[in-house]
Amino acid sequence: MDASTIFHIHQFYARQSHLIDSGRAEEWAGTFTAGGAFHSPTYPAPVVGSADLTDFAAGFHRRATEQGEVHRHVVTNVWVRPEEETPADGVIVEAYLQVLATEVGGATRILRMTTLLDHLVVSEGRWSVARREVRRDDSPA
Amino acid sequence: MDASTIFHIHQFYARQSHLIDSGRAEEWAGTFTAGGAFHSPTYPAPVVGSADLTDFAAGFHRRATEQGEVHRHVVTNVWVRPEEETPADGVIVEAYLQVLATEVGGATRILRMTTLLDHLVVSEGRWSVARREVRRDDSPA
Amino acid sequence: MDASTIFHIHQFYARQSHLIDSGRAEEWAGTFTAGGAFHSPTYPAPVVGSADLTDFAAGFHRRATEQGEVHRHVVTNVWVRPEEETPADGVIVEAYLQVLATEVGGATRILRMTTLLDHLVVSEGRWSVARREVRRDDSPA
Repeated sequence: MDASTIFHIHQFYARQSHLIDSGRAEEWAGTFTAGGAFHSPTYPAPVVGSADLTDFAAGFHRRATEQGEVHRHVVTNVWVRPEEETPADGVIVEAYLQVLATEVGGATRILRMTTLLDHLVVSEGRWSVARREVRRDDSPA
Repeated sequence: MDASTIFHIHQFYARQSHLIDSGRAEEWAGTFTAGGAFHSPTYPAPVVGSADLTDFAAGFHRRATEQGEVHRHVVTNVWVRPEEETPADGVIVEAYLQVLATEVGGATRILRMTTLLDHLVVSEGRWSVARREVRRDDSPA
Repeated sequence: MDASTIFHIHQFYARQSHLIDSGRAEEWAGTFTAGGAFHSPTYPAPVVGSADLTDFAAGFHRRATEQGEVHRHVVTNVWVRPEEETPADGVIVEAYLQVLATEVGGATRILRMTTLLDHLVVSEGRWSVARREVRRDDSPA
């Protein structure tokens, strides 16, 4: 793992949150592979593939707006797992994700604390999520 | 954009918060260009130039201290925007900034959630903010 | 200070939190030198050396679990201090550390806001904490 790989991955996570939080749903879906899968206990079923991922991201942003709130995905502790655990086609990343909500004219609160477990793949210098698993701290393991 | 640029920018943001939060007002102002401008809906007018930026940072720290509190600027999701959007003399950075407040002997709360939109310039290897715009999640866009 | 050093240090901090928060106490203790020292006003005395650091980390995780909570160490603003302040055998790092707590089936709150002041040393490409000092924002300086 070299510095350049880590830098691309940090940029990847920084950007991805800005996309979904500002309603750029199609661009957010484009951070997954064409058949990328999003697994989260917050939602009833996995979300798979660009069209469904776009709808998912658009829905996230629309519901926040309808509630008169701004929601943010704050990503920290991005740990690119060491090479002995690395799949041949990419890397495994573990990161913390806090979802924060702010009422327009009101206060900010932490909606939920989660951990991301991502399988990222790289193609022609572009990183994508092949599989994301979100684990919520408020849900039994 | 290379790894070295990103590393300098990450260091820049990490350091900048420590400076204002610990009351090193002049050093914080020195992270802006000589005519650097700070635009935020939290304050009545833009703050422009080293002298006013120093006063601004000193005031931030003094007010927190007078309230018996410690305030912190927690910066995450530092996204150095891609080169096609980049001004000739630097970079555009989008980042999340949470302002946290802790009462001495008491609890920690999130004062506000904001987004930074910065125009950074580099001169002789030293990065500075030419223009910062702060957007608050609790204020209508 | 080069980009590669900074990226190793970012990886170091990202990983360290995941270790203690998931109960990998011995691996967490292994992020300190053999005689590494942990100083924090949260605990009655400094914790020194691998055996005591392992017990400390195991206790942290066990107490959270007994309370029906998940605790997380969210590290941000990792500032590797400049070379003129650098000890010959490593670096000084200043970082923010939020400790968050989530009740299973409940809400997330900020337990405490702290600053880390670390002396990191490197040996054969591996970084370790020789001395950590934790400063709490809720405690008088």
